[in-house]
Amino acid sequence: MATSTSSLSLSQSFLSRSSPNPISTHQQSNRLARFGSKPGSISLSSGVVAGRKGLGSRGATVRAAAEKTDDAAAALVDKSVNTIRFLSVDAVEKATSGHPGLPMGCAPVGHVLYDEVMRYNPKNPYWFNRDRFVLSAGHGCMLQYALLHLAGYDSVKEEDLKSFRQWGSKTPGHPENFETPGVEVTTGPLGQGIANAVGLAMVEKHLAARFNKPDNEIVDHYTYAILGDGCQMEGIANEACSLAGHWGLGKLIAFYDDNHISIDGNTEIAFTETVEMRFEGLGWHVIWIKNGNTGYNDIRAAIKEAKAVKDKPTLIKITTTIGYGSPNKANSYSAHGSALGAKEVDATRKNLGWPYEPFHVPEDVKKHWSRHVPDGAALEAEWNAKFAEYEKKYKQEAAELKSLINGEFPVGWEKALPTYTPESPADATRNLSQQCLNALAKVLPGLLGGSADLASSNMTLLKMFGNFQKETPEERNVRFGVREHGMGAICNGIALHSPGLIPYCATFFVFTDYMRGAMRLSALSEARVIYVMTHDSIGLGEDGPTHQPIEHLSSFRAMPNILMLRPADGNETAGAYKVAVMNRKRPSVLALSRQKLPNLPGTSIAGVEKGGYVISDNSVGNKPDVILIGTGSELEIAAKAGDELKKGGKTVRVVSLVSWELFDEQSDEYKDSVLPASVSARVSIEAGSTFGWEKMVGSKGKAIGIDHFGASAPADKIYKELGLTVEAVVEAAKALC
Amino acid sequence: MATSTSSLSLSQSFLSRSSPNPISTHQQSNRLARFGSKPGSISLSSGVVAGRKGLGSRGATVRAAAEKTDDAAAALVDKSVNTIRFLSVDAVEKATSGHPGLPMGCAPVGHVLYDEVMRYNPKNPYWFNRDRFVLSAGHGCMLQYALLHLAGYDSVKEEDLKSFRQWGSKTPGHPENFETPGVEVTTGPLGQGIANAVGLAMVEKHLAARFNKPDNEIVDHYTYAILGDGCQMEGIANEACSLAGHWGLGKLIAFYDDNHISIDGNTEIAFTETVEMRFEGLGWHVIWIKNGNTGYNDIRAAIKEAKAVKDKPTLIKITTTIGYGSPNKANSYSAHGSALGAKEVDATRKNLGWPYEPFHVPEDVKKHWSRHVPDGAALEAEWNAKFAEYEKKYKQEAAELKSLINGEFPVGWEKALPTYTPESPADATRNLSQQCLNALAKVLPGLLGGSADLASSNMTLLKMFGNFQKETPEERNVRFGVREHGMGAICNGIALHSPGLIPYCATFFVFTDYMRGAMRLSALSEARVIYVMTHDSIGLGEDGPTHQPIEHLSSFRAMPNILMLRPADGNETAGAYKVAVMNRKRPSVLALSRQKLPNLPGTSIAGVEKGGYVISDNSVGNKPDVILIGTGSELEIAAKAGDELKKGGKTVRVVSLVSWELFDEQSDEYKDSVLPASVSARVSIEAGSTFGWEKMVGSKGKAIGIDHFGASAPADKIYKELGLTVEAVVEAAKALC
Repeated sequence: MATSTSSLSLSQSFLSRSSPNPISTHQQSNRLARFGSKPGSISLSSGVVAGRKGLGSRGATVRAAAEKTDDAAAALVDKSVNTIRFLSVDAVEKATSGHPGLPMGCAPVGHVLYDEVMRYNPKNPYWFNRDRFVLSAGHGCMLQYALLHLAGYDSVKEEDLKSFRQWGSKTPGHPENFETPGVEVTTGPLGQGIANAVGLAMVEKHLAARFNKPDNEIVDHYTYAILGDGCQMEGIANEACSLAGHWGLGKLIAFYDDNHISIDGNTEIAFTETVEMRFEGLGWHVIWIKNGNTGYNDIRAAIKEAKAVKDKPTLIKITTTIGYGSPNKANSYSAHGSALGAKEVDATRKNLGWPYEPFHVPEDVKKHWSRHVPDGAALEAEWNAKFAEYEKKYKQEAAELKSLINGEFPVGWEKALPTYTPESPADATRNLSQQCLNALAKVLPGLLGGSADLASSNMTLLKMFGNFQKETPEERNVRFGVREHGMGAICNGIALHSPGLIPYCATFFVFTDYMRGAMRLSALSEARVIYVMTHDSIGLGEDGPTHQPIEHLSSFRAMPNILMLRPADGNETAGAYKVAVMNRKRPSVLALSRQKLPNLPGTSIAGVEKGGYVISDNSVGNKPDVILIGTGSELEIAAKAGDELKKGGKTVRVVSLVSWELFDEQSDEYKDSVLPASVSARVSIEAGSTFGWEKMVGSKGKAIGIDHFGASAPADKIYKELGLTVEAVVEAAKALC
Repeated sequence: MATSTSSLSLSQSFLSRSSPNPISTHQQSNRLARFGSKPGSISLSSGVVAGRKGLGSRGATVRAAAEKTDDAAAALVDKSVNTIRFLSVDAVEKATSGHPGLPMGCAPVGHVLYDEVMRYNPKNPYWFNRDRFVLSAGHGCMLQYALLHLAGYDSVKEEDLKSFRQWGSKTPGHPENFETPGVEVTTGPLGQGIANAVGLAMVEKHLAARFNKPDNEIVDHYTYAILGDGCQMEGIANEACSLAGHWGLGKLIAFYDDNHISIDGNTEIAFTETVEMRFEGLGWHVIWIKNGNTGYNDIRAAIKEAKAVKDKPTLIKITTTIGYGSPNKANSYSAHGSALGAKEVDATRKNLGWPYEPFHVPEDVKKHWSRHVPDGAALEAEWNAKFAEYEKKYKQEAAELKSLINGEFPVGWEKALPTYTPESPADATRNLSQQCLNALAKVLPGLLGGSADLASSNMTLLKMFGNFQKETPEERNVRFGVREHGMGAICNGIALHSPGLIPYCATFFVFTDYMRGAMRLSALSEARVIYVMTHDSIGLGEDGPTHQPIEHLSSFRAMPNILMLRPADGNETAGAYKVAVMNRKRPSVLALSRQKLPNLPGTSIAGVEKGGYVISDNSVGNKPDVILIGTGSELEIAAKAGDELKKGGKTVRVVSLVSWELFDEQSDEYKDSVLPASVSARVSIEAGSTFGWEKMVGSKGKAIGIDHFGASAPADKIYKELGLTVEAVVEAAKALC
């Protein structure tokens, strides 16, 4: 990074001073410690008075031995840090709800990151090459809002801080990327953020390997995260961090806010593992900052050390005091999740020597931070110039990278999708899905992904690419291991890195149960992740009820902003992929069969785009005797039953209802053209729960499905025993018409 | 353990021989190794030829330096182990599907456990004090079926082995406790089993602390588990194992089958962490057996060492060869999940020197194992005598323990539940839930549980008890930490330990997304777990959409064999608990409010037991003008809207639909008395997805709900903005009648 602004130089002077030669006893006692003692036996540095008896940070600076100018700079850092603390305290107080504890404890690391270390452009939060920051401990969002506010982001003005947690504000109770530019991902549900960060860092490594040239490293940013004890306890965090270690994500730097407090009190009651040892086992570089409350130089030095370790991600355990500065609530769960209360806010102001009104940013602090707007613009301009150079020399790569950045696809990309005729050989939709993935990978440079150790069952390998690995990060087949939840959250990180990226991930459909937390966040955070979910029913056979989804289709149909697609054959699988790619602001779940299915007459990509459509009909005037509705592997059964009924002289319409959400979005006129209100004789068949089907078949219709668990046996046998047969549909239809 | 049967003495002689003085070079090279090198760099002992080039186990025994009798015994062990291997191979071959690889690799440890170490009674698989075994790598279930068969369990006869994975068999594709006595828990979804094992071991520690006396340790068993690489990658396993370390579960002994192969190939592609270091970090004792294929003495010695470590659980990493003995498929993913094929089965028979027909158990092996039936009966008889002694001396404790063992509750236990009148103060159902829990804990000795770090939000503390901890295991408040998935699976283990145990666990309702895998297994495995899920809607307010459930009610209503209950006030909360306790073979989910709710006229415990019931009605002849339906916090809105409409002269019925599943189970007559087919003017209101409500309101009715994500704001504001109001219900009702 080369800039010439004096204020940035000031920051750099801090960085360059970071503790190679400790200059005071205080600094010595504060210097980075490698782990060695267990949580609970941490010795706080002498001279640093934290929590209850605290004098605040003012007495704990590096003042004594420093130069006079450093002295003033250090005081300004203190002031900036306290500004962050009080913006947080004041916003929570005004909202009378929220989490002041983490922002008060993590203000120092927040300050160092946003004021000294990170490269970003406040006026363009979407600048491609920005450093990414993820607050995995999302409840502490006032920390991030305060930092975005100081840094000059338009998304968090003073009035936004004042409307924290209020209807329609840009400052909701947990960070939401779709509400607040500058927030990269949506966090709050614990453990998700660090897994998103792994995704962000992983895709940086991938893109850097694909696009960087010896003379032009056009992709080059860090990913920072703050996670708390809660994140550390969540299994998803361990899954994602195991992968981060495996992949050697050297540019991922995660701060573990070790404050010993969770909602139920001291972490001693449930969390006594040695986190550092676990992370060393996961292949991370680990650093411990013993005094995270005031040890600015330690923070700076730790980041420097982390950056120097290029083949491993770094966990910086930073011991802080939750609610730092609050005389009566620091170091206690009472600072975690409630407003401090007017009296304690006053006491904290006195304790930290903060004479200002609520929400006040002192002029010198404001001035100090004001450089980030011009500096950020300069950083982006510099990068733009670099990109222009790149484009001149590497035209094709530049075009591809550009499409990843702006999310625009080559015209006619969808023509790459295969189409099928009834004469095409019967095949499992999981295999057809692989044909689509491989076809799309050729035209969509942002398509990458893989499976949770089921690539050969989910059929997700891209044949023209190798494996994304530590030493081959340019490749596009991602091997997630048996880590469904981490996989989903990593894909959210990938999707939210840049608009042109299209991550897909795969497992058996039933194991969406393991990753639902991440899938819901795909939906909420508008992340276009394609969930390739095979073995989508009892049709998987012998593996039995632990592996057979029943309620899963219903459960995703009920989830907002996610497309549940269950294609029946080749054309519908292609259609499902078209829909999934085109829906840039919502994820898609594709339920795919293990078993072979015929290519049915009447199916089409265009039909899938409407969610529900007629595949055959021998009636006239939109008034068949009966409507048979099927999805996925049961559309074949509906079609066969239709043929039977037609032989018996009935007029029959067969409808594929591949995506309820898309069908719901069609005009009333269209919907009535498929499912006319006047026809109440309707039979549906789907190898899953009938829950919700009343909407489609009406109170007079009949839904054939499975409202209990499946069984272990060959698929055909189970279908027959559970009554998912042509005969059952015919019988039900005859009873209705 | 004191027995006098000669065959058990034989087993004990094996145990006592275990490697304090290695007697051959072979043994020396095989002896227990502490970890130190990474997976991938493991050196197999010389002389042991594994996998592709294998001569099989016959050449690798301890024969050289042993006595002649030991010689014969060792040969018999080999033969027994190969019997296990071939029963597995043959069953998979006959089914033409299944997983032969793990049973072939883990047969030695399986043999040592079931033939030499574990204490059980084959003719009473439910004997209370049995050692528990959990095959967390459930796909390898043929290992367990073969062992149960050899041990003499009636559940797995030869014909059951021959009908592996067939319709109606006792030998499904993954172990199912409800199908196969002798199988403790249902596994297959990876990571669940080891977490169940933590629950089993945890409750043993709890019951031992509660009931054991210095002169009579009436509760005393071990919990063994086998988990594979897949389990190790799953976050749930890390969550549960972190707790096991925290709790110091010294009688939990888990074998980590380190075979380097998962479905996608070598674990090198996605799993290179140092598992041993992670487990040391989690507070476990770790042992590594380098030669798990033939190192019987190492296995024995490791178990001995593990038992000697009383304050920590033990992970025994045991390096095995997947598909051991198969000349062309061992050590490859192709042995993992498919039948070997006739040709390879033949080759394996030759390689391991196995001349027998499929499914044959050699007579000497049969004879050797036959002692387990009398020995098991003796073990139980001995324990029964011990219990009789206990009962004499400790009458009250014995009665309590008995009720935990047989699942019978004191007569009139349900009278302990509080009841309320409309004059009772308004309160949040989460608080009312706490009143119920505390009332029930006094009369139900098996009620224990806690929260995933939200005890003070979920209101789950039992006030008369302390915390279950390493040093206070007799207490009943469990602190799970922020580990929802592990919590659910641990509770499954507790519930399936003994019929009288009633575990409950708690988090915010939205975070069921994190634990759905475990919840589905509660349902499938018929485990009575009570899920106390608070903050059940947008009514939680400011925490915003990441924390606000929308689709969750629907998603559980669609899940088989689980009760979704959403009580509206005090009486309904008490009713929900009554139902949850009485449903011994299914779990219950209680959705509870954060916000205060009034006690409504007309609600009752008896009403809840029917799932849906009328709380007020001013009509006659079962023909109101309109039916208003509400659940939980919205029942109040429905009731108020009813009052409004009555003022306008309408006849109105207000229905509480607290549990759809229970309502579905009522007679048609009863259902029609609540929701008569003749009344199509129906309005429902629920602060959740409307998905599925067509069933209740019919195609002419109106469902008021939320089909998008929530928002961060005070609860009242969100209700109003999203249209969940009395006015909206009144308006909808007026439009219909």
